[in-house]
Amino acid sequence: MGNFQVRTDLALEAREGITEGECGELRGVRVEEEYEEAKDIRVTKVMIETKNAAKLMGKPVGVYVTMEAPALVEPDEDYHREISESFAAQLLKLFPDGDRELSVLVVGLGNREVTADALGPQVVDHLYITRHVVKEFGKAAYNCSKMNLVSSLEPGVMAKTGMETAEIIKGVVAQTKPDVLVVIDALAARSTKRLNRTIQITNTGIQPGSGVGNHRNALTQEELGIPVIAVGVPTVVDAATIVGDALKKWMDEEDDKFDSRLAFAELNNMYMTGKDIDAVIKRVSYTLSEGINLAMEKKMVVYDA
Amino acid sequence: MGNFQVRTDLALEAREGITEGECGELRGVRVEEEYEEAKDIRVTKVMIETKNAAKLMGKPVGVYVTMEAPALVEPDEDYHREISESFAAQLLKLFPDGDRELSVLVVGLGNREVTADALGPQVVDHLYITRHVVKEFGKAAYNCSKMNLVSSLEPGVMAKTGMETAEIIKGVVAQTKPDVLVVIDALAARSTKRLNRTIQITNTGIQPGSGVGNHRNALTQEELGIPVIAVGVPTVVDAATIVGDALKKWMDEEDDKFDSRLAFAELNNMYMTGKDIDAVIKRVSYTLSEGINLAMEKKMVVYDA
Amino acid sequence: MGNFQVRTDLALEAREGITEGECGELRGVRVEEEYEEAKDIRVTKVMIETKNAAKLMGKPVGVYVTMEAPALVEPDEDYHREISESFAAQLLKLFPDGDRELSVLVVGLGNREVTADALGPQVVDHLYITRHVVKEFGKAAYNCSKMNLVSSLEPGVMAKTGMETAEIIKGVVAQTKPDVLVVIDALAARSTKRLNRTIQITNTGIQPGSGVGNHRNALTQEELGIPVIAVGVPTVVDAATIVGDALKKWMDEEDDKFDSRLAFAELNNMYMTGKDIDAVIKRVSYTLSEGINLAMEKKMVVYDA
Amino acid sequence: MGNFQVRTDLALEAREGITEGECGELRGVRVEEEYEEAKDIRVTKVMIETKNAAKLMGKPVGVYVTMEAPALVEPDEDYHREISESFAAQLLKLFPDGDRELSVLVVGLGNREVTADALGPQVVDHLYITRHVVKEFGKAAYNCSKMNLVSSLEPGVMAKTGMETAEIIKGVVAQTKPDVLVVIDALAARSTKRLNRTIQITNTGIQPGSGVGNHRNALTQEELGIPVIAVGVPTVVDAATIVGDALKKWMDEEDDKFDSRLAFAELNNMYMTGKDIDAVIKRVSYTLSEGINLAMEKKMVVYDA
Repeated sequence: MGNFQVRTDLALEAREGITEGECGELRGVRVEEEYEEAKDIRVTKVMIETKNAAKLMGKPVGVYVTMEAPALVEPDEDYHREISESFAAQLLKLFPDGDRELSVLVVGLGNREVTADALGPQVVDHLYITRHVVKEFGKAAYNCSKMNLVSSLEPGVMAKTGMETAEIIKGVVAQTKPDVLVVIDALAARSTKRLNRTIQITNTGIQPGSGVGNHRNALTQEELGIPVIAVGVPTVVDAATIVGDALKKWMDEEDDKFDSRLAFAELNNMYMTGKDIDAVIKRVSYTLSEGINLAMEKKMVVYDA
Repeated sequence: MGNFQVRTDLALEAREGITEGECGELRGVRVEEEYEEAKDIRVTKVMIETKNAAKLMGKPVGVYVTMEAPALVEPDEDYHREISESFAAQLLKLFPDGDRELSVLVVGLGNREVTADALGPQVVDHLYITRHVVKEFGKAAYNCSKMNLVSSLEPGVMAKTGMETAEIIKGVVAQTKPDVLVVIDALAARSTKRLNRTIQITNTGIQPGSGVGNHRNALTQEELGIPVIAVGVPTVVDAATIVGDALKKWMDEEDDKFDSRLAFAELNNMYMTGKDIDAVIKRVSYTLSEGINLAMEKKMVVYDA
Repeated sequence: MGNFQVRTDLALEAREGITEGECGELRGVRVEEEYEEAKDIRVTKVMIETKNAAKLMGKPVGVYVTMEAPALVEPDEDYHREISESFAAQLLKLFPDGDRELSVLVVGLGNREVTADALGPQVVDHLYITRHVVKEFGKAAYNCSKMNLVSSLEPGVMAKTGMETAEIIKGVVAQTKPDVLVVIDALAARSTKRLNRTIQITNTGIQPGSGVGNHRNALTQEELGIPVIAVGVPTVVDAATIVGDALKKWMDEEDDKFDSRLAFAELNNMYMTGKDIDAVIKRVSYTLSEGINLAMEKKMVVYDA
Repeated sequence: MGNFQVRTDLALEAREGITEGECGELRGVRVEEEYEEAKDIRVTKVMIETKNAAKLMGKPVGVYVTMEAPALVEPDEDYHREISESFAAQLLKLFPDGDRELSVLVVGLGNREVTADALGPQVVDHLYITRHVVKEFGKAAYNCSKMNLVSSLEPGVMAKTGMETAEIIKGVVAQTKPDVLVVIDALAARSTKRLNRTIQITNTGIQPGSGVGNHRNALTQEELGIPVIAVGVPTVVDAATIVGDALKKWMDEEDDKFDSRLAFAELNNMYMTGKDIDAVIKRVSYTLSEGINLAMEKKMVVYDA
C-alpha cells in the first residue's frame, strides 16, 4: 500500500477560508503582495507574527509565501526558467541571514510511483549535488572560495519503509548536520483554480494534523534544531472537498450548513487530478529543481563578492 | 503531454442508465446472471443481439460480460488467483470456437507514466510470451503437441508516438497476422462503487466516440479482420460526472434537469481516483495477466485431450 | 528474458580491421575526414560505392558517417548542444534531397530495462512529436507554412513482445507511411576507446548477421521501401572480444593466431560497460534527441526560405 | 554520476586465493560444507575465529556462509521458492539467539538505475513491511502474540544524495533503533562461474577498503551498535580482473608475475555482466525477498511454540 497522503493545505486558502479578504487587518498578521507583470507572477507573503494570530489562522507563526504563476501549467522548452529565477529569489529570503556557507539538505517527500505524488522525488532527481565532492576534495574541486554543500534524500513512503518519514529525516539530519532543511512536497488544494500553478514556500516546516497531540511526526525547527523550509505545489484536489464545494455553490447555501466530508463518505479516500498530470509533474519538478540550483549558486556568488 | 484518455464506459452502467433494471425485457437484449458464492464473484452477461437493440442501448451488437469481484480491491498474497481463474474461463468463452491452435496478440493500451492509466502496460509486463520461441524452435521447445502463440504490444500514447493507437495496432496485426486480438485498458466508471473491482470483457472491441463519423480509430473485427476482445477495469471516475451525480442525489432532482458536464466546466479535464491507486493497479494487473496466461494454457490443454 | 542483443558494429572499426589505414586507396571506397577544432569533433565519412567494395568491406553499399566527440563522455549542463548541432547537420545530409516536407518515423531500439541498452528508448522520450497535431489541426497549429511530421515508436524487445522488431516496424511503416525511417540503437564497439563518444550515422539501415541467408529481419530501404537512416552509439564492448584483444596485444601475436571468441567460451554472453553507464546513457540520449529535434526544425526553416 | 561501486568480494574467493584448498587446516579458521542434493544447493560456512586468522585471510573475524545454487540462473515460475527456504534457514542462524521479537531494518544498497546494481533496491521492493502497522495498531493487527517488526530503506547512491550511504544508515538506525540490520548488495566476483548463482551471508557487515585507515564508512556492529548481517549476490565481474585472469591462464604464468589491474588501465572503471542481467536481477531479488519474508515469519512461528 502506497497511500497518497494529503499532507498539507495551501496557506493562502486557509486565509481565504477564515478571513474572507480582510486578513490584512487581523492583528498579528501582515500581508504583502507583489506582481511581476512581465512574468505574470503574483507573490503573496503572509506573515503570522503572534501566537494569537496563529491560533486564529490555524497555522503556526512564520512566513508563508505563495507564488501564483499561471504559465507553470503550460509547456515550455526551458521549463520556465523565469519562474525558477523568481522562486530562487523567494527561497533565499527565507534562508538564514549572513554570509557563511551553508550545508543544505533537500528532501523530496511523496511516492514516486503515484504520478501526482511524485513531485518531491522528481525534484530531487535534478538537483546539483555537491556535498560529497567538497567533503572529499575540498572546494578547490569547483574552483570556488565559497561553496554551499547540497545533499538530498528521498525517504519513500511509510507503507514501503515501515518508518515515519520524520523518523528517517531526523536520523539523517542528526548524523549529517546540515544547516538548513528544504522539504519538497505535493499538496492538496481546495479548488482546481490553483492546481499546478501555485508554489508555496514557508519557514514553518511541515506539521501533520491540526497541531494537537504529539509532535513526533513534525518537520519543524523545534523538532529538528535547524531551520526547515517547506516548498509545495498543489497537484491534487481532495475529492470530497471539491464535490462539497461544488454542491454549496450550486445550492447557494451558507458554509456551515453541512460538512461535505460527511456527506460523501464514499469519496473520502479519493483525490482528483488533471488528465495530463504526468507531463505537469515533470515540468514543474524541473522548474523547482532549477530554482533550488540557482539559489544555491546565487547564494555562493553573492557571498563571494 | 500524455493525456489520460477516458476511452470507454462500462456496459453495465450504460444498461442501468437506459433501462433501469428492466433490461431483460428489451427485445433483442438478453441478460444472464450468475453468482459464484465461494468467491463472491457476480457475472452479468448482456447480449445485444439485434441492430435495433444496439441502437437503443447505444452499444454495438455483441456480448458484454461484467465480473464484479469485491475482493479485487483487497491485498492478497496470491494476487487473487481465484479471480484469475474465473476471468480465464469467461475470456475463453469469447474466443473463436474449435480446437485449432491460436496466435493471440495482447495489446496493453494506456500510459505507463500515469498510475491510474498504467493497467494495460502492466498487464503486458507479466504475460507468458511464446510466439517467438515457437517460430524459432517449434512447439518442441515446450514439449507440447498443441500450443497457442502469444505475443504482446504496448503501443504507447499518441502524445508520445504521434500516431493513433489504432494505426500502430492495425499495422502490427497486418504484418504478424494473429488469429485474435485482446486489448486491455483502464476504464472510467460513472460511480465509485465499481472502481477497481469490476472486470468487463466484450467481443465488440473498442469504438471511440459514439459511433458517429469515421471509424478510423476503431479496434473492431470489422476494421481489423480478426476477432477483438476488449478487457477493461474501471480505475478512475470522471470528475465532472461524479460531482454532477452527487449533486443530483443531494438535490433529489430528476436526471434530465441539467447536464453536469456543462455545470462544472472547470472539471472537464480532471479525473478522480483512489489514494492507493499504485498498489491497486499493480495487484489488478497481476490478476489479469495470470488470467490470460491461464486461458492460453487451458485452451491448449483442453484441446490436447 | 530481455537479452541485450549486440546488433551491429562500428563501420570505422570494420574498416580498420580490414584495410589497416589504406582504405582510401581501395577501389570503390572513398573516405573524407573533417575536424571541427573548436568542438573537438572529428567526422569520418566512408562511402562504399561499388558492390565489389561492399564485398571486400563486409558492409553494404552506402554512406557511413562517424563522429568522434570526446566531450560526449563528460557531464555538461546543456547536454552538449554543440554536438547536437553537428549531429543534426550530418543527419540532414543523409536525408532525401528536395524541399518538400517529410514525415519522419524515429524508432528507438533496445531494452529500456537494461541500462546500457536503453539508449534508443531514452532518445525517443525526448523527441518533439508533431505528426498527430498536424494531422488533427493542420500546420496552422504551429504557425508554419512548412512543417515536418515527426512520429516515434519504441517497439520493445522480442523476449517481451514475441515479435521480431522488424515485424513491428514494417507493420507500422506500411500503415502510417512515413517518408523516412530513423533508427536509434546502442552498439557494441571492439575497443573501449570509442565507447560513449562516437556517433555513427549510416543510410544503409540495419542488417542483422553478415548478410547471408534471409533478410526477414533487415531494416533497410530494400525491405521497407523508404530510406532508412541508422544512428548508433557504442555503449558496450563485447567481453570475449576485449579479452581476446588484450591477450593478443600482450602476447604480441599475429591477428590470425586464434579466435578469441573460441578461447573464452565462458564470456560469450557477456558484455562490458562503464561504471557510470546510467549517467552516460542519460546524457548521450539527450544530445541525440536534441540533434534530431534541431534537424527536423532546421529542415523546415531552410526550406521555408 | 551514479557510479557502480564494487563494494565487496566473495569470501569464498578470498579463501581460494589465499589458501588454495588447505584452508580447513589454517589455525583459527573452520570450514563446514553441506550439500542439499534434492535442491542442488552447496553451503560452505567459513568461520574466522581469531585475529591472526583474520589477518591471514584479509577478512574480519566472523561467519561467512556461501550458498551455491546453480538453479538460480534459470527462470522459474515460483522464483525458486526452494532456494528462498534454504536462504531463510541460513539467515536465521546468523540472527541473535533467543526467543524475543526483533525489530529488523533491511537496507537495499546500490543504484536502481543501473541494472546490475539494482539488486538491493529491488529486494526491498518486495519485502513484507510490518513495523508501522504494529507501531500504530499493535500486534493485534496481525492476530499474532509474537511478531517481528520489519522496516526497510533504500538510501540511494552518494552521487545522488551527496552523503555516504553509511551516514544515512547510521542516522536512521540511531533514530529508529532496530535490533538487527540486514544489508543487501550486489557484489563483484573474480570469475564468471559464480555469477548470479551464489548467495553470500555474513555477520561481519560491510567494510569498505582493506580495513586500514578510517572506519567512517563501515557498516559493522562496532560502528552501529547492533548486529549487521550482509547479504550479497555477485552480479558483475570486474573487467580488469577477468582480463588479467584470462591472460594468466592463457600464458600459464605464475600468479605474481604482474598486476593485471596495472596492465589494463583502460579497463579500470569497467565491469562485465551477462546479457540477460535484467531478467536475472528481477528473479534473484524475488528469491531473496521471499527468503527474508520467510525468515521473519518463521522466526515468529518458531518462537511461538
